[in-house]
Amino acid sequence: MRNIKLTIQYDGTNYNGWQIQPNGITIQEILQKNIKKITGEDAKLIGAGRTDAGVHAIGQVASFKTSSGLSSDVIKRALNANLPDDIRILNACDAELDFHPRYDAKSKIYVYVISNFTVISPFLYRYAWKVPHKLHFEDMCNAIEFIRGRHDFSAFRASGCSAKNPVRTVFNISIEKSDTIHFMDIPFAGNFLKVRLEADAFLRHMVRNIVGTIVEIGKGKTKSEEIREIINSKDRRLAGPTAPARGLFLEEINY
Amino acid sequence: MRNIKLTIQYDGTNYNGWQIQPNGITIQEILQKNIKKITGEDAKLIGAGRTDAGVHAIGQVASFKTSSGLSSDVIKRALNANLPDDIRILNACDAELDFHPRYDAKSKIYVYVISNFTVISPFLYRYAWKVPHKLHFEDMCNAIEFIRGRHDFSAFRASGCSAKNPVRTVFNISIEKSDTIHFMDIPFAGNFLKVRLEADAFLRHMVRNIVGTIVEIGKGKTKSEEIREIINSKDRRLAGPTAPARGLFLEEINY
Repeated sequence: MRNIKLTIQYDGTNYNGWQIQPNGITIQEILQKNIKKITGEDAKLIGAGRTDAGVHAIGQVASFKTSSGLSSDVIKRALNANLPDDIRILNACDAELDFHPRYDAKSKIYVYVISNFTVISPFLYRYAWKVPHKLHFEDMCNAIEFIRGRHDFSAFRASGCSAKNPVRTVFNISIEKSDTIHFMDIPFAGNFLKVRLEADAFLRHMVRNIVGTIVEIGKGKTKSEEIREIINSKDRRLAGPTAPARGLFLEEINY
Repeated sequence: MRNIKLTIQYDGTNYNGWQIQPNGITIQEILQKNIKKITGEDAKLIGAGRTDAGVHAIGQVASFKTSSGLSSDVIKRALNANLPDDIRILNACDAELDFHPRYDAKSKIYVYVISNFTVISPFLYRYAWKVPHKLHFEDMCNAIEFIRGRHDFSAFRASGCSAKNPVRTVFNISIEKSDTIHFMDIPFAGNFLKVRLEADAFLRHMVRNIVGTIVEIGKGKTKSEEIREIINSKDRRLAGPTAPARGLFLEEINY
């Protein structure tokens, strides 16, 4: 038996998220079907992060057990030959048999892109949340400091979240502002905010709920310091709305 | 009567090109329908460049005559409120009544992106031509020098091209190589070539046929110097295949 580790990139726009479910096509489903096509085996593909419908991945990691004799490079090429253009295998390799993409992850990095401008480019709208309101950047910077560290993140957790323990450690959180963003190396003018979060793991909708709350703070609807009370309350109703999926990228899984 | 000049950006993936035609939805058609919705008038929108199906525009320019009393800013906002997300008006302003987007253009700039790598990212495949073959960059650099200047470009002209005069002046042509390309400011590794062409005007498929020929030279199928003979022959059959539309961007129109 072997354990094949895949690094996967996908544009989540046309998918109903990572995890197989009754309605809509998912990334996991398409990958499993293609693994079966190549190995002849019914593999269960375990992903490091269950991205929501519309969320993108730059470096998702997943693994599956197989008794196939195909080299990992052949598996990679055969999968890419069969997969749709919006899902690509960047790397395939043999991992330890007990390697688990989720349990073994030391940290995960998500990036969220906000376009804080009245018009959003046709090339960017699938990859950013358009927030045309005036945002107070400093207040948003102050707010994120309260997120850093080890907290019970119940206030930022979706109702359907199945995690037993709501405590997570946010190692890093940053927010960057820029007046251009590069697409195909071409600079596009606007006003862009990028929120980057690194944590040991994330609750369901945690990044999107944090971003939604930070944007409320940027609009002046909530004060920066209130985010501490929101965390302490463990009450989802006190946090801001869930930011849309399209601006979210699973950037990297660290082992 | 007024003459409204629009600067337009679009992702050409889902359209049958700029110009209205019997089959498929075009950018011009969608814009004209929305201009009618806003002004109540049947306007004829004149574009600076007739981009092919699948070709993108970063800064297309077009104009239409109207007797509407709406300010140009209101026209811009009303169009953007009604247009699909993959077409955006970047700017609208009142131009001279005799302004003509095509005849008055001093130069047009097109950019063509090639991904010279075995795998292309799900975020980039709509915007680059994937050429997995080994390409000799220096030969391609030598070849483009023959393109520069005033020539009869019949050899690079599509059969359906309606231009009376096939002579065009290429002011600038460059080819750049890089091992990363930025998408949402995130660096994507690979091997990318960018061909940029500035000319007084272009014949139909001229950029795509030049790029297709340069790639043949990169593959070693044609010698750099042969491009001079191809130009002199005025024979389309001697030039390379037409490069796919997806890698092409109309970048800028200069007046």
